[in-house]
Amino acid sequence: MAALPTVDDVARLAQVSRQTVSNVLNSPDIVRPGTRDRVLRAIGELGYRPHASARRLRAGTSSTIGIRLHPMRNGISGSVLDRYLHALTEAADARGMRVSLFVADDVDDEIRHYERLRDGADVDAIVLTATEYDDPRIAWLARERIPFVAFGRPWGAETDDDPTRLWVDVDGQAGVHQATRHLLGRGLTRIGYLGWPAGSGTGDDRRRGWETAMADADTGVDLTRLTFTAEDVVADARASIEALVRDGVGPSTGSGHRPSTGSGHRLEGLVCASDSLALGAMMAVREAGFPHFPVIGFDNTPVASAVGLSSVDQRLGDVADATVELLMGATGSRVRPHGDVGDGPRHRLVTPELVVRRSSHLAE
Amino acid sequence: MAALPTVDDVARLAQVSRQTVSNVLNSPDIVRPGTRDRVLRAIGELGYRPHASARRLRAGTSSTIGIRLHPMRNGISGSVLDRYLHALTEAADARGMRVSLFVADDVDDEIRHYERLRDGADVDAIVLTATEYDDPRIAWLARERIPFVAFGRPWGAETDDDPTRLWVDVDGQAGVHQATRHLLGRGLTRIGYLGWPAGSGTGDDRRRGWETAMADADTGVDLTRLTFTAEDVVADARASIEALVRDGVGPSTGSGHRPSTGSGHRLEGLVCASDSLALGAMMAVREAGFPHFPVIGFDNTPVASAVGLSSVDQRLGDVADATVELLMGATGSRVRPHGDVGDGPRHRLVTPELVVRRSSHLAE
Repeated sequence: MAALPTVDDVARLAQVSRQTVSNVLNSPDIVRPGTRDRVLRAIGELGYRPHASARRLRAGTSSTIGIRLHPMRNGISGSVLDRYLHALTEAADARGMRVSLFVADDVDDEIRHYERLRDGADVDAIVLTATEYDDPRIAWLARERIPFVAFGRPWGAETDDDPTRLWVDVDGQAGVHQATRHLLGRGLTRIGYLGWPAGSGTGDDRRRGWETAMADADTGVDLTRLTFTAEDVVADARASIEALVRDGVGPSTGSGHRPSTGSGHRLEGLVCASDSLALGAMMAVREAGFPHFPVIGFDNTPVASAVGLSSVDQRLGDVADATVELLMGATGSRVRPHGDVGDGPRHRLVTPELVVRRSSHLAE
Repeated sequence: MAALPTVDDVARLAQVSRQTVSNVLNSPDIVRPGTRDRVLRAIGELGYRPHASARRLRAGTSSTIGIRLHPMRNGISGSVLDRYLHALTEAADARGMRVSLFVADDVDDEIRHYERLRDGADVDAIVLTATEYDDPRIAWLARERIPFVAFGRPWGAETDDDPTRLWVDVDGQAGVHQATRHLLGRGLTRIGYLGWPAGSGTGDDRRRGWETAMADADTGVDLTRLTFTAEDVVADARASIEALVRDGVGPSTGSGHRPSTGSGHRLEGLVCASDSLALGAMMAVREAGFPHFPVIGFDNTPVASAVGLSSVDQRLGDVADATVELLMGATGSRVRPHGDVGDGPRHRLVTPELVVRRSSHLAE
């Protein structure tokens, strides 16, 4: 990064010590007039910003929120963070703020970027995404007392009311619960869940939405036999569901037929942890000759809308608005100092919304 | 936008005139020491950056490139600019630059944002996207001598070698030409083109790639009868091709059959101006019972990869690298002043690349 002029640059140009530059800025009356003038001219020539770092950060005058741009994922759900970025930039703009992007190789590199942004006073606050258990970025930001909001809750500590650990998140469990209820409401009972293999906060949370809806409906089906997994890639999901079809566990609702409730051991519908999974599953069941087998995705990506896939919308506009509110308060025009949230909220859990399309209508 | 401290703020706090503040910064020796000290303290207290605007812009020390974030389009091709933004942020990072985002209501509002960014010295350069004929933003940036690169060529003046009007673009004509050659190479002749209705530089350019490939192949078919249009929305493209199928103009290659060359008046393949169009067309022909009718898109969106659609990849990484090179030179670490490109290139036209997938393989 091309460095801003530093106090050392000023000292060098004015041929004085670092301390003298500091004196000119803080106690000008103890510096000899000739020296003072030389330092002032050097400051003007270099465009050095006295005390910019500390002062601007304290005053919140960079009017900028920093956020790491993660590498583009090839999957179709990768666009979720891009859509959040759009919503965040718009929500920030409505409060007179801009969004500054940077890339990083990993979490440690991201923290080094935070340091540089702080040293240059280039941002008033940080928004973190893709948070992890015991996220080292959150620990660093809290220690440095830099205002931040995490998109992603601190799993296991969601109820903490710590005013220095602000977060927003989407209630994935509620979203998948809605999707499952939608299929239960159509008289189906053997509703499967296609999720990700590895345990993750987000994945476990979404799966619980299906589990609780199924348990509440008291269908009596064995949930362990209806739980399937695939990597978050269309082709993997497709292969996984093709295998189910081959094994005779797959769909039982052939073309044009409504399923009979509780028809044996075959699957009657599928709720998925993402649109990537749902798209792969939909391709597999459609090509196997089940045009009306219901499939529901999660994320409501542009692809879902394009191919008529029902999907849970994360309401990223609300998530972005909540992010800015946590940073700036309900109406403020500046980022609040770290921890300074008064008795206002410390986090916001946005309830997503099922968007119903052709893929989950039984008869069309 | 929360304003940076201005010379007026300093004058007010130091209880002097604007001119006195200016004198302290530019000719400190003509100001009485007591007054000078008061002004200096005010500067320090407010974090005012002397001459920041003009100097930082000239020195290129904000290390930031500004770019307007356009509203998220609902279509699947809307992600192209997001993918460019990713590539640009990465290319900028490799040269120590960040990317700052803002939103704007329209072109005039975008220009007002440019003014504010310039006044605050918040960016060293601007990247414009979605350029138009006689773009007022380009006129403004050139007049203000702000370094910029346009993603999108100045239609009708592409050969201009103006060092103050730098641009990058993708050679859409070459891309569609490749796609059409790919189908011609498989022995097809009645290859249609599905484009956008309204004349646009980008749309006309892409269509010409099909026209020239068809003319060179000397197929003897009437191109006007093979040119189709739809709005850039999956559902519109789908409806458009469904109508062709109903009218008997649509595909002639039924399941498993290879087409005979020049088979009557029916369509044998389709090259499309975007993946949105191609996806709609593909859904229409597949559901009408033509699993092998070849369709090719443009943009190589994540959806194309997900559903096996052949598509022209814009090589946005190369476009982003070219953007940064035009701004900073081949190896520089700072943005070059407006117009200061020496005998280096003034623009770069990136040749895209066809990615072949199942949708354009005849037999699989």
